Amino acid sequence: MLFWDSLLRKHMMELSDVREAYTRIKDHVVRTPVMTSTTIDGLTECQVFFKCENFQRVGAFKFRGAFNTVSQLTDEERKKGVITHSSGNHAQALALAAKMLGVKATIVMPTNSPKVKVAATRGYGADIVFCENSTESRANVANELAEKHGYTLVHPYNDHRIIAGAGTVALELIEEVGALDYIFAPVGGGGLLSGTAIATKGLCPEAKVIAAEPENADDAYRSFKANKIFPSEYPNTIADGLRTQLGDLTFEVIKKHVDEIVLISEQEIIDAMRLLWERMKLVVEPSGAVSLAGLLKKSNDISGLTAGVIISGGNIDLTELFGSYSKQTN
Amino acid sequence: MLFWDSLLRKHMMELSDVREAYTRIKDHVVRTPVMTSTTIDGLTECQVFFKCENFQRVGAFKFRGAFNTVSQLTDEERKKGVITHSSGNHAQALALAAKMLGVKATIVMPTNSPKVKVAATRGYGADIVFCENSTESRANVANELAEKHGYTLVHPYNDHRIIAGAGTVALELIEEVGALDYIFAPVGGGGLLSGTAIATKGLCPEAKVIAAEPENADDAYRSFKANKIFPSEYPNTIADGLRTQLGDLTFEVIKKHVDEIVLISEQEIIDAMRLLWERMKLVVEPSGAVSLAGLLKKSNDISGLTAGVIISGGNIDLTELFGSYSKQTN
Repeated sequence: MLFWDSLLRKHMMELSDVREAYTRIKDHVVRTPVMTSTTIDGLTECQVFFKCENFQRVGAFKFRGAFNTVSQLTDEERKKGVITHSSGNHAQALALAAKMLGVKATIVMPTNSPKVKVAATRGYGADIVFCENSTESRANVANELAEKHGYTLVHPYNDHRIIAGAGTVALELIEEVGALDYIFAPVGGGGLLSGTAIATKGLCPEAKVIAAEPENADDAYRSFKANKIFPSEYPNTIADGLRTQLGDLTFEVIKKHVDEIVLISEQEIIDAMRLLWERMKLVVEPSGAVSLAGLLKKSNDISGLTAGVIISGGNIDLTELFGSYSKQTN
Repeated sequence: MLFWDSLLRKHMMELSDVREAYTRIKDHVVRTPVMTSTTIDGLTECQVFFKCENFQRVGAFKFRGAFNTVSQLTDEERKKGVITHSSGNHAQALALAAKMLGVKATIVMPTNSPKVKVAATRGYGADIVFCENSTESRANVANELAEKHGYTLVHPYNDHRIIAGAGTVALELIEEVGALDYIFAPVGGGGLLSGTAIATKGLCPEAKVIAAEPENADDAYRSFKANKIFPSEYPNTIADGLRTQLGDLTFEVIKKHVDEIVLISEQEIIDAMRLLWERMKLVVEPSGAVSLAGLLKKSNDISGLTAGVIISGGNIDLTELFGSYSKQTN
C-alpha cells in the first residue's frame, strides 16, 4: 500500500489517466448535455458551452470519480467495502457507485446533516454512521471504522482515481465542441479543478484554465499565490460544496496547470445562479454557479473567444420553495 | 380572407401540415433535448422520454407556432405588423418571432401584468399597449388596433399555423426516440395538444394521446365529454398557461385524435413540478409539469411501455426565492 501510494504521488497525472478512467466509467455515467444560451453569449460576447453535470447521476460530477475508484478496487477490498465521511454529493456518489458494483458502503455523517441528504444516501443502500458535528470527529470515526473492518477509505478529492474521474467532464466537453480558448471550473478541494486542468491542457494546451472560488472561502486563492496549502478556516459561503481545502495531490496539479483563480462574492454567486435558473432553466446549486460567475468576471478577456463552463451540480433543498407553493394553493 | 378562413377551417389538419411547418422553422428553433430519469422510470415502470420545451427560445413551445405564423405572412401583412393580446408566453414568442423576421409586433397586456413579463416582452422589441384587466377589454383593444392599423391578429392557439408549429415538438420527439405507446401533453386552449395529437397519430397511429388538465380549470375535460365547447369560467389554478378555453379548430382535432383527458389537482401539479426540479434539475413552470402529473396518474396503464411527456415551458417568477437567498447571505 505504502509503496503504491508513494509511487502514485510521484506520478504526475496526465491526459492518459483521464482517458483510462473514461473507458472504465463511460457506460455507467450520464453523458451530460452541453447547453448554450444566447443571453449569456450576448452578455459576454463569447461563445459559451455549459457542461451540465447537474444532470449527472446523483446530481453532480462526483459520481464519475466515485465509480472510477470503486471499480478499481481489488477483490479483497470489494469484499470488505468502502467508507467515507461527507454530508454532501460525494456521499451519495460513493453510495450509488458502490451499490452498482455490489460493494458495501458506509457513510459517516454529522448528526446535524439535513434529513433529505441522509434519506438520499440511505436510498442508495449505504449504511449511515452518525458522528459529532466537527471535521475532526468525522475523520476520526471514519478512520476507526476503516481500520476495524478493513474498509477502504475513499477521499472526496485527494485521490488520483477521483481526480481522473472528474477529468472526464472536460474530456467529454472538449471532444464534443472542439478546442476551447478558456475553461472555467469551481474550486473547493480541487478534485474537479485538477481533473479539468489535466484534460484541458492535454487536449488543447493553449486553453486557459480559470478557477472560480468564493471570496468567503478563499483558501485555494491564497494557497495558489503563496505556493503552500492554507487550511480553509471558517468558510462562510452559500456554496457549501466549496468549503473544503486543497489536498497535496490536487495542489500539485493546480500549481502546474491552472492559469488563474478568481474570487467571487456571495451576491455574484446568487446572481449567477439566478441567471442559470431563470434564463437557462437549469436547477444548479450555488457551488455549481460559481464557475459562471467566474466567466462573467472575465468577460473583458474572453470577448470574441470560446469558453467552456462546468456546471458541477444541482443538489439544493427546495423544501422551503415548494412549501410556500403548497400554502398558496391550499 | 373569409374565403381562405373558411377553406382552412374545413381542411382537417394532418401530419404533412406539421412537416411543412417544421421545414419552415427548423433552422430558427432550438432542437430541445429529450431527457430521461431513472427515478421516474422506476416510479412508473415505464420508459419515459421528456421533451424539454422549457429550453426552447423564450422558454416555451409557443415560439414554434409564432415563428411558423409570422414567416407565412404576405409582404403586405409583414409591412403592417402583427398584434396579439396575452400576458403569457405567447406574447414573448410573437415578439421574438416578429423581431427575427423584421416585423413590427404590438402586444396588448393588462395593466396588472407582472413587471418581469412586460420587461421581457419589451426586451424582444415589441410595442406594449396596456388595457384594462379583463379578457373582454384585451380582445377589444387588440381588435380595434388591428382594424385601425391593419395589423394581423395572431391568436395564441386557434390558428392552423400555430397548431402546426406546436406539432413540431412531438415530431422531433418521435423522430428521435421512435414510436411511442403513450404521449402526454397539457391542455389549456388546445394548441399544443392538437398539434401533438396530429403529429403523434400521423407518425405512430397506435399511440395513445393523453391530455392532462387542472381540475380547477376543467373546461376541456367537460367539453370533451359533452361534445361541445364550454367556456373556462373562474379558472383557479397555479398552472396559469392552462386557464384558457378550447377554440373551434383545436376542439375539432382533439375530438378526433385525443384518447383521454385526465384531471390533475393543484397538489399533484406541485408534486410533479417538485419532481422535475429536484430529481431532473429542470426549471419547469406549473403548466409544464401538468403532463408529468398525467403520466403519474396513468402509471398503472403504462407499465412496461414507452411514453413521451411534453414539458411545455419553464417561465416562472423566481424573485421571491432569490430575494430570500440574498437576505440569507447579506
